[in-house]
Amino acid sequence: MNDALKATLGSTLKSWIESANDPASDFPIQNLPFGIFSDAVNTRPRAGVAIGDWIVDLAALEDARLIDAHGTFHAPRLNDFIALGRERWRAVRIALSGLLAQGNATLRDDEALRRRALVPRPDATKHLPVEIPGYTDFYSSKEHATNVGSMFRDPKNALLPNWSEMPIGYNGRASSVVVSGTPVRRPNGQLKLPTEDRPVFGACRKLDIELETGFIVGRGNALGEPIACEDAESHIFGMVLLNDWSARDIQQWEYVPLGPFNAKTFATTISPWIVTLDALEPFRTATPAQEPQPLEYLRHRGDHAFDIELQVTLRAEGARRATTLSRTNFKLMYWSMAQQLAHHTVAGCNTRVGDLMGSGTISGPTPESCGSLLESTWNGQRPLKLEEGGERSFLQDGDEITITGWCQGDGYRIGFGECAGRILAARA
Amino acid sequence: MNDALKATLGSTLKSWIESANDPASDFPIQNLPFGIFSDAVNTRPRAGVAIGDWIVDLAALEDARLIDAHGTFHAPRLNDFIALGRERWRAVRIALSGLLAQGNATLRDDEALRRRALVPRPDATKHLPVEIPGYTDFYSSKEHATNVGSMFRDPKNALLPNWSEMPIGYNGRASSVVVSGTPVRRPNGQLKLPTEDRPVFGACRKLDIELETGFIVGRGNALGEPIACEDAESHIFGMVLLNDWSARDIQQWEYVPLGPFNAKTFATTISPWIVTLDALEPFRTATPAQEPQPLEYLRHRGDHAFDIELQVTLRAEGARRATTLSRTNFKLMYWSMAQQLAHHTVAGCNTRVGDLMGSGTISGPTPESCGSLLESTWNGQRPLKLEEGGERSFLQDGDEITITGWCQGDGYRIGFGECAGRILAARA
Repeated sequence: MNDALKATLGSTLKSWIESANDPASDFPIQNLPFGIFSDAVNTRPRAGVAIGDWIVDLAALEDARLIDAHGTFHAPRLNDFIALGRERWRAVRIALSGLLAQGNATLRDDEALRRRALVPRPDATKHLPVEIPGYTDFYSSKEHATNVGSMFRDPKNALLPNWSEMPIGYNGRASSVVVSGTPVRRPNGQLKLPTEDRPVFGACRKLDIELETGFIVGRGNALGEPIACEDAESHIFGMVLLNDWSARDIQQWEYVPLGPFNAKTFATTISPWIVTLDALEPFRTATPAQEPQPLEYLRHRGDHAFDIELQVTLRAEGARRATTLSRTNFKLMYWSMAQQLAHHTVAGCNTRVGDLMGSGTISGPTPESCGSLLESTWNGQRPLKLEEGGERSFLQDGDEITITGWCQGDGYRIGFGECAGRILAARA
Repeated sequence: MNDALKATLGSTLKSWIESANDPASDFPIQNLPFGIFSDAVNTRPRAGVAIGDWIVDLAALEDARLIDAHGTFHAPRLNDFIALGRERWRAVRIALSGLLAQGNATLRDDEALRRRALVPRPDATKHLPVEIPGYTDFYSSKEHATNVGSMFRDPKNALLPNWSEMPIGYNGRASSVVVSGTPVRRPNGQLKLPTEDRPVFGACRKLDIELETGFIVGRGNALGEPIACEDAESHIFGMVLLNDWSARDIQQWEYVPLGPFNAKTFATTISPWIVTLDALEPFRTATPAQEPQPLEYLRHRGDHAFDIELQVTLRAEGARRATTLSRTNFKLMYWSMAQQLAHHTVAGCNTRVGDLMGSGTISGPTPESCGSLLESTWNGQRPLKLEEGGERSFLQDGDEITITGWCQGDGYRIGFGECAGRILAARA
């Protein structure tokens, strides 16, 4: 990491945008996450960066020749910008950090430009930040895999033998990845009731969440040319929060032998702001010890986890207060993102800019740190009391689920914003 | 089906392109499958239709105002054309049939245009015909599911209870779908040998084929709005042949509990010409009887299978003769394409133009009609004798696999061309 880039991360750095200096803001000047937005004045989706209570319109800044992204900031998806490569992402980051830093008058004192280039964040509509050519979901939390294995297979041999040898993953459905705020309709499907010989058709009765993060591929690889584990992080543009909504009853009936399908293809929600790996750099930490030592293609030196606090809340319909369902941390994940990407490509699979890779449900060791209701209510057997709105085994119509995540720095935090969705009643 | 469209299918119809009238040609005037090609003279990939030994350059015909596809034939993928809708596909088909019919002089006698618009098929490079936003693979052959279940689970309960209730499917990897002729590199991965406690890393030793067909979605559906079974065929543009290359040893170790991943993401080959559902209409026939009767959302009246003969051959490196590994028929499939699409969307999943949906391995009731070596050699226990090149349990480097398929009409056939690939040695 060069000095100019390092300077964008300093904990004492402040912005002339006052709301960015609030220690509780998700979007201080050290963050600068990328997204796609539109607003009432300019309804064309375009690239922006979140800072404090504002969005910097990158297309407007590029038009003013203050940053250079080869015109890609006018596109309704970040893919073309991301495809320019890491040197360009970093150059833009350094330029933006300079423009927004306390004491820099270029944008601050140019009122006409400031009016064009700064949009109040609450007024803006956030769009899916990238076109997602492929979505893969991993299963990399040891606690989650152990919980699920205990529940549905054998508590004595909860973890299958392959789990400790590779980051198990499967292909998800990219078409139904939606941006935070999009309502989620309860799916219909086949339900196999224990009292009936044959399945019945109806609305899912065990609608669940999966608290995850995801990373966005910033540099693809050609078919047949695997990404080396040591090099894998250089292929990652950044991270988002992800809710892998799951219909547990549909899943239990359909998933043998080819894995989950309709139980998860009805919606996957991601947060709108992609936090770059550069912004996360100060929060790099060690992954849990891996035993047995992974095969060579899955080895990398140094630290490859990130200390990201995660929280999920549920607000019942009409309730004022939300209840915290879980608090956990991304650093608990057994397999790193680099290992996931190395494994994904080792047989020759190609990846593309914009590909989304989900972490898998992130669970800690206690019921309060589980990333799904399946685990925290133990398949509905131990309902959770809400602070307001009764109790829950699984989700009810009208429930609003919000995932938040942040890295806690010294007097500031690198936040992800929200990954939220409200449940609509099933289609009649 | 209107009269003009019906007229394009008449078995007595002939073309002034003589090679199209050969009863053994895959591409008579009744077929007119769409693809993307380029050639030495014009290296830009563009839309074409195969007829006899020729390709009709649709972009050239549109420039000459003989057909109208709103300029979409200049694109390097068919998605924009397909998105114009079924009425437009049909109008183009009717116009092309007229232009190519015996006795029509418009194109035949315009030598300058004919030189621009007719490209010798063997000289052309075929490209992937569509950009594939999503790839799903089903598992809809009862014989295949029974064989696999007998081999790896329990011969007495080979078919899992969910199999007879729904078209089981899973999300495939769209990025590695390649066009016929693309070499396929033997994948590396984790192999769990029975003699070892831990997996080893190495080249796949059980590389296999899966003889399939696939259909291309011609009209998508919005998130949350399922496609009704009765209406599903109107969402299908056409069909291709598909080889779902599979690394059986990687698959066996990795697939529990989330399904196949690296075992299948290294390559999936499709044939270059999309045969429209309209061209297949005369070969419509009944699916096998379904017992128990499917749930209501999976019911449709009438016939929904198609009588498509399928064959797969293997030619060893250096051999002159290929050996037929299997002959089977698409009409044996238990679940119809319409049922697959209805099931895929019933929980709310959206589909998009260009989505590829694989049938799953198509096996008949005998070893000679199995769609995979896994089945025909019973997991390698009964090697097959090749006519030239020794015997095979699984594929060897240099082997060339070719799938062909055709509907046999009265004096003509609606062919799919080839879906071929040759095995390259694994990466060192």
